[in-house]
Amino acid sequence: MSARLLTGLPVAKKLRADTARNIKELAGTGVVPKLAVVLATDNESTAWYVRSIVRQAAEAAVHCDVVDLGADAGQWQLQEALEALALDHTVHGIILQTPLPAGVDAAVLAALIPVHKDIDGANPESLGRLAAGLPAYAATTAQAAVEVLEHYQVPLAGEHVTVIGRSMVVGKPLAQLLLARDATVTTCHSRTRDLASHTKASSVVVVAAGRAGLLTGADLNEDSVVVDVGTNVDEAGRLIGDVHADSVLPVAKALSPVPGGVGTVTTSLLMLRTSQAALESLVASAQPA
Amino acid sequence: MSARLLTGLPVAKKLRADTARNIKELAGTGVVPKLAVVLATDNESTAWYVRSIVRQAAEAAVHCDVVDLGADAGQWQLQEALEALALDHTVHGIILQTPLPAGVDAAVLAALIPVHKDIDGANPESLGRLAAGLPAYAATTAQAAVEVLEHYQVPLAGEHVTVIGRSMVVGKPLAQLLLARDATVTTCHSRTRDLASHTKASSVVVVAAGRAGLLTGADLNEDSVVVDVGTNVDEAGRLIGDVHADSVLPVAKALSPVPGGVGTVTTSLLMLRTSQAALESLVASAQPA
Repeated sequence: MSARLLTGLPVAKKLRADTARNIKELAGTGVVPKLAVVLATDNESTAWYVRSIVRQAAEAAVHCDVVDLGADAGQWQLQEALEALALDHTVHGIILQTPLPAGVDAAVLAALIPVHKDIDGANPESLGRLAAGLPAYAATTAQAAVEVLEHYQVPLAGEHVTVIGRSMVVGKPLAQLLLARDATVTTCHSRTRDLASHTKASSVVVVAAGRAGLLTGADLNEDSVVVDVGTNVDEAGRLIGDVHADSVLPVAKALSPVPGGVGTVTTSLLMLRTSQAALESLVASAQPA
Repeated sequence: MSARLLTGLPVAKKLRADTARNIKELAGTGVVPKLAVVLATDNESTAWYVRSIVRQAAEAAVHCDVVDLGADAGQWQLQEALEALALDHTVHGIILQTPLPAGVDAAVLAALIPVHKDIDGANPESLGRLAAGLPAYAATTAQAAVEVLEHYQVPLAGEHVTVIGRSMVVGKPLAQLLLARDATVTTCHSRTRDLASHTKASSVVVVAAGRAGLLTGADLNEDSVVVDVGTNVDEAGRLIGDVHADSVLPVAKALSPVPGGVGTVTTSLLMLRTSQAALESLVASAQPA
C-alpha cells in the first residue's frame, strides 16, 4: 500500500482560475491589482522566490513592484518604504520578504502593514483578527496547507489534527484556521515529549518544524493524512520536507509532499489575495465614509 | 485520596503585593494609575463584578472611573467613549465590560482600545501580539489561570496541557500563554470527539467551556492537575464551575476550584496591570519621541 499524493498543482490551478475571475470583475473599473514586495537581502533562494512571484504576477495580470532596499537596509529605510506603501492607494497587497538584515526589528515592521493589505499575513494583528473571526489574511503557508486539505476533501470538523511547529508563519495561524473549521488541535514543537503519542492519535498531521526527516512512518497510523510544510535543503542542494517520505509513504493514507505540495500553492494564493484586496478596495471606496 | 485545592487567594495576595510595590514606585512622579470601566448593561451580576473592581481599586490606590452609558447605549456612543479614553493620557487601563447591548459590534469596539491600555486583553491585536511574543496583555482570565498554575509550581514546559474551550477570553489566549511556556497544547471544544482521550493523556487540564459538570473524574488520571475556569449558576443561584467536583476531587492530584480559584485572581490582576501600564507610561514619556 502506498499513500495517495496530495499534490499542490490542481489546488494552484483552482486558485488561479479564481484570480482570473476577480481580474475580469475588475476590468473597466480603472483598478489594477498591485502587489508590492519589499526586499532587503541578497539571499539567493529569496531572489529565486521573488522572481517566481514576479513571473506569476505577470501571468495573472497583477502588477508587481519589487522594492529592493539592498542587504544593508536599516530599520528606518524599511519603515519608510512600508509606510509609503501603506498610504499608497494604488497598492493592494504588501509582502515584507524575509530574511531581513540583522538588527532589524521584523515584528515592528510587520505591524506597519495595514491589515487590509497584509496579504501574506505577516502583521500579528492579522493573526489576532483571524482568531477573533474578523476579516484578515492568514499567513500564506498556513492557508495553503488548509487549501490543500480542503481541495482533497479531507475531513477536519471534529477531527483531531496535530500541528508540529509553533511559528507565526505556519503553526500558530494554522491552529486558528483549523479551530475555525471545528478541528480539535494539538500544537507540538521542539519541547514536546513523545511526539508519536500525539501524531498516532490524530487523523491529520501537519508538520512545519523545519527539521528534515522529523516525521517517520512509525509516528503514524494507516488512516493518517500528512501535510508536509517543511522546507529544508539536503547535502545535494535539493529541497526536502520534514517528512521521511520513504517510511511514511507505505504507512499513511495520504501525503502532501515536498516538493510539489503546499509550496506550489503559496504564490497562487498571493495573487488571489491581491486581486481580492483590489476588489475590496473598490467596495470600500464606494461606501460612505 | 483527595485532590489538593489550588485556591486563588494566595495568588491574589501576591499580585496585590506586586501592585503595592508599583504604586510605591509611582509615588512622587505625579502619575496616579487610573482605570476606566466602560459599562452598558443593567445586568445584575455585571454590576456586582464592577463594584468589586471599584472596591479593589480603592484598596489598591488605583483611580477607577466607571463610564456607565446605560443599557440603551448604541455603537456610536460606545465608540466615542472608548476613543476619548484612548486619547486621555491620564487613563492607563481600559476595560470594556460585557455583556454589551444587542446589535453592538463588540470586536470593532475592542479594537479601539490601544494595546498599551488594553489591560483586560480584549483587543484581538493584543492576542496577535501575544502569539508573536510582543508586549501585550493576555485576556485576564487566561492569565489568571496561568498565574494559579505557576504559583503552585505546576510544571508546564514539555507537559501536555488540554484546554477545553476556544473563546477569545480564555481558550485562545490561554493556548498562547501555554505554548510560550513550552507546553504541548491541545484545544478541545464542543465539536471535539472523545474528550476523555485528550484529558486522560494530559498532565494539566484547564476547562473553560461554560458547561456545568462537563469534566468528571472519569475524564482524568491520578496525576491530573485541573483548573476550573467555568462560571455557571446552578438552580439555587450559586456560582459553580465546569468541573464535576464530587467525582473529580477523589481522582485528580489537584484542582483549582470554583468558587475560590481563578476568579479570585482576576480583579487583582487588573489592578497590577493598571499600575504596570502607569509605570510604562512614565518610561514612555521620558524617552525621546
